[in-house]
Amino acid sequence: MTQTIVKLTVRDVRFPTSLEKHGSDAMHADPDYSAAYVVIETDKGKRGYGLTFTCGRGTEIVVCAVKALSALVVGKSLEEIVNDFRGFYRNLSSEPQMRWIGPEKGGKPLWKLLVDMDPKKLISCIDFRYITDALTEQEALDILVKAQAGKQQREEQMLKEGYPAYTTSCAWLGYSDQLLKQLCTNALNDGWTKFKVKVGADLEDDIRRCRLIRQMIGPNNTMMIDANQRWDVGESITWVTKLAEFKPLWIEEPTCPDDVLGHAAISKALAPLGIGVASGEQCHNRVMFKQFLQASALQFIQIDSCRMGSVNENLAVLLMSHKFKVPVCPHAGGVGLCELVQHLILFDYISVSASLDNRMCEYVEHLHEHFTSPVVIKNARYMPPKDAGYSCEMLESSVKSHQYPDGDVWRKLQG
Amino acid sequence: MTQTIVKLTVRDVRFPTSLEKHGSDAMHADPDYSAAYVVIETDKGKRGYGLTFTCGRGTEIVVCAVKALSALVVGKSLEEIVNDFRGFYRNLSSEPQMRWIGPEKGGKPLWKLLVDMDPKKLISCIDFRYITDALTEQEALDILVKAQAGKQQREEQMLKEGYPAYTTSCAWLGYSDQLLKQLCTNALNDGWTKFKVKVGADLEDDIRRCRLIRQMIGPNNTMMIDANQRWDVGESITWVTKLAEFKPLWIEEPTCPDDVLGHAAISKALAPLGIGVASGEQCHNRVMFKQFLQASALQFIQIDSCRMGSVNENLAVLLMSHKFKVPVCPHAGGVGLCELVQHLILFDYISVSASLDNRMCEYVEHLHEHFTSPVVIKNARYMPPKDAGYSCEMLESSVKSHQYPDGDVWRKLQG
Repeated sequence: MTQTIVKLTVRDVRFPTSLEKHGSDAMHADPDYSAAYVVIETDKGKRGYGLTFTCGRGTEIVVCAVKALSALVVGKSLEEIVNDFRGFYRNLSSEPQMRWIGPEKGGKPLWKLLVDMDPKKLISCIDFRYITDALTEQEALDILVKAQAGKQQREEQMLKEGYPAYTTSCAWLGYSDQLLKQLCTNALNDGWTKFKVKVGADLEDDIRRCRLIRQMIGPNNTMMIDANQRWDVGESITWVTKLAEFKPLWIEEPTCPDDVLGHAAISKALAPLGIGVASGEQCHNRVMFKQFLQASALQFIQIDSCRMGSVNENLAVLLMSHKFKVPVCPHAGGVGLCELVQHLILFDYISVSASLDNRMCEYVEHLHEHFTSPVVIKNARYMPPKDAGYSCEMLESSVKSHQYPDGDVWRKLQG
Repeated sequence: MTQTIVKLTVRDVRFPTSLEKHGSDAMHADPDYSAAYVVIETDKGKRGYGLTFTCGRGTEIVVCAVKALSALVVGKSLEEIVNDFRGFYRNLSSEPQMRWIGPEKGGKPLWKLLVDMDPKKLISCIDFRYITDALTEQEALDILVKAQAGKQQREEQMLKEGYPAYTTSCAWLGYSDQLLKQLCTNALNDGWTKFKVKVGADLEDDIRRCRLIRQMIGPNNTMMIDANQRWDVGESITWVTKLAEFKPLWIEEPTCPDDVLGHAAISKALAPLGIGVASGEQCHNRVMFKQFLQASALQFIQIDSCRMGSVNENLAVLLMSHKFKVPVCPHAGGVGLCELVQHLILFDYISVSASLDNRMCEYVEHLHEHFTSPVVIKNARYMPPKDAGYSCEMLESSVKSHQYPDGDVWRKLQG
C-alpha cells in the first residue's frame, strides 16, 4: 500500500569547526561546517533524511528555501514520486530557488537502489532539457545497458575492497608545518597514498608546504593541490607553473567556478606540465558541467552531493562524464558530504564507468561521529554502506546540541 | 560630517499580476511580480531605497538573505563605504549568498552621480577578480577616459530626447489575439516602433502571432522574439529558423541562461538568417558575461539591475561589452526594473559606449504607479530621472497594501 509524506521538518545545525581551522583554505579562512537538516515522515511513520552542506552564516537562508519548497513535497505519495521521477524533480527544480531534495526509498542503501534500478527507470530520473546537444536520452540508455556486463562482479569487488579514497585532512591552509608533518606521518601509517594540499594565499608558503609534503610522501605517492578559486586566469597559470616541480596530479579550483573558458585556457597551458585541472564542488547544474566537458576544460570532474541538490542532477553528470571520457573524483568533506557522495561514486563505478583509472573519492576526517551510519574507511578506501537510505541521518543528540543559535554548543560559545 | 547607517528594514511586497496574465511567457505561466524592498536609514535621518525583483513565491527567501547580509551594512559610515567601494562590495559579494545591495548617495539621481564620478573612482567600484583575462583595470580606465570627450553633449541630448525604448507590453504569451491587436494599435499610436513578442510554447501559435504582429507594425518597424529559456540548443535553431520569415532582430533566451557554448552555437547557426541572440536577465555575475563575450555567444547584452544585485557588477559588464563591441540592451519590466535600469543605460551611453546604434532599453507598462518617482516615457523614450537616488522608493501605501501575506490585497485574494 502506498504511503504519503505528511511531515517535513528542517533544522539549522552548525559545528564550530573554525575554532581549530579545520576546513581553512585560500578563500574560506574560518568555516563553521553546517547543514540545513531535513527529516520527512510518511503517514505510516517511515522517515527519510536529507541535508545540504553550508559554511555557517547563511544557513538560515537555506532553511528558509527548504520551507518554501516543502509545499511541493508534503502531501505527495511515494507512488506518484516513483512513477514520475522526472516530473517530480522538474517540479522542484523549476521553482526559482535552490534545489535540495533527492528521492529516497527505504530498505536499501541508495547506491544499491540505483545499481539495481532498471536502466529505463534510471533514465526517467534525469531531466534532459538543455543537455541533448551533449547527451541524448538514447545515448544515456546505451551507456547504462552496456555497463550491465560485469556489474555483478564490480559490486562484489566493491563490497570486498571498497572504493579508493584520498585525504584532505593533512594540509588545511591554517595548519602549522608541525601539525602538517604529524598528520602526514599518521596518514602514511594508516595506508593513505594520495594527499591534497591547500594552496593559493602566499606563493612562498605554498612552495615550502608542497616541498615538505612531497618529501614526506615520497615520489610514488600522489599529491593534488587546491586553490579554492583564489586566482585570475593568467595568475593560475603562472602560480601553478611555479609549483610544477612538486608534481601535483591536479590543480583544483584555480579560478571562478563559473569560468568554463578560463578553465579551458588553464588546462591547455598546464597540459605540457602534466598537471590536470579539477573543479565541480561549486558547479551548480548539469548545464555548467556539460560545458566544462564540451570545452575540454577539466580533466577531473568533482561532483558534489549537495551543491546540485539532488541525485537526479548528478546522474546526468555521471553519464555525460562517461561519454566525454573524463574521470569523476567526487568532492567530499564538509559535514555529511562523505556519507552522501560515496553512494554516487559506487554507482558510477558499478553501473556507469566500470573503471578505477585515475579515480578516487575525497575523504576528510571530521564530524562523522554525528551520523547514525558514518562512513567506514579501510585501507584508505570507502567501504560500501549497508544501511538503508542515503547515510545522512544524524544522531538526535548531535542535532539538538548543535542547533543554531539555541543548541548547547552555540549557547556556550556565544555566552 | 559623516553619517552612519543605523537601520535596515526589508519587506516582502507582492503584486497579483498573474490574475490578468501580465508577464506570462513560455516558462512562467503566472508570475506575481514582487520585490524584496529595503529601506536603510542613517543617524541623520537620511534614507536609501533598494529592491530586488522576484516572481512571487520564494520572495521570503530573498528577504531572509537580506536580513543575513544586513549585519555587513548596519553600522557602516557613508564615508567608509565611499572611500572603499570595492572593499565594501567584495565584503558583501563574497558572502556565499545572493547579492542585493548597490551604493547610493543622496542629492543626485544615480545616473548623474555615476556620470559625474571621476573615472578612477568609478574603477574603484569594480572587482576585477576573475575578469583580468578579458578586461584589465587599465583598459577599463582608458575606456572611461576616452569617453570623456563629448560627454557633456550626450548628457544634454539625453535630457532633451531621452533614451530609446522598446515595448514588451503588447504580446505576453497569455494574451488573446484580440487583445494583442488592440494593444499593438495603441502602441503604434503612441509612437512605439520596436516590439517584443513572447514565443516558445507552441510553434503554430508563434507563427500566427508573429505574422499578426508583423502585419500590424509593417516592414520598417522592429520585432524581437523571446523564448524565456524554453528550448534545447538544436531545438532553438530549428524553431527560430521557422520564424525567420517574420524578420526578428533577435531571439532572446532561447535556452538555459548558463549555456555559453550553447548560445555560441545558436548565434553561429542563426547569423546567416540575420537574427542575433540576446540574453542576460538571468546571468548572475560578471564572469558569465565575460564568457558570453569571449565566445561571441551573444549579439545583444541584456543586463538587469537586480539579477546581479548591484550597480558595481553591472559597471564591469558595461565596460566589457564596450571592449567587445556588443551593444547593451537592458532587460526591464517586472516591478521597479524600468525605474532602476534606466540609470545604468543612461550612464552607459553618456560615459561608456557613446553610441545608440542597435541599442534600446526594454519597457513594460505595469506597476509604475507604486513608485514615488515613476519612469517617464515620451515618444517611446526614457526621459532621464531628476530625483535623487535610484528611483526605487515605493509609496508607503502601496507597500502596506501589497505586503505578503498580511496586506489588504493579499488578504482579500486569499480570504
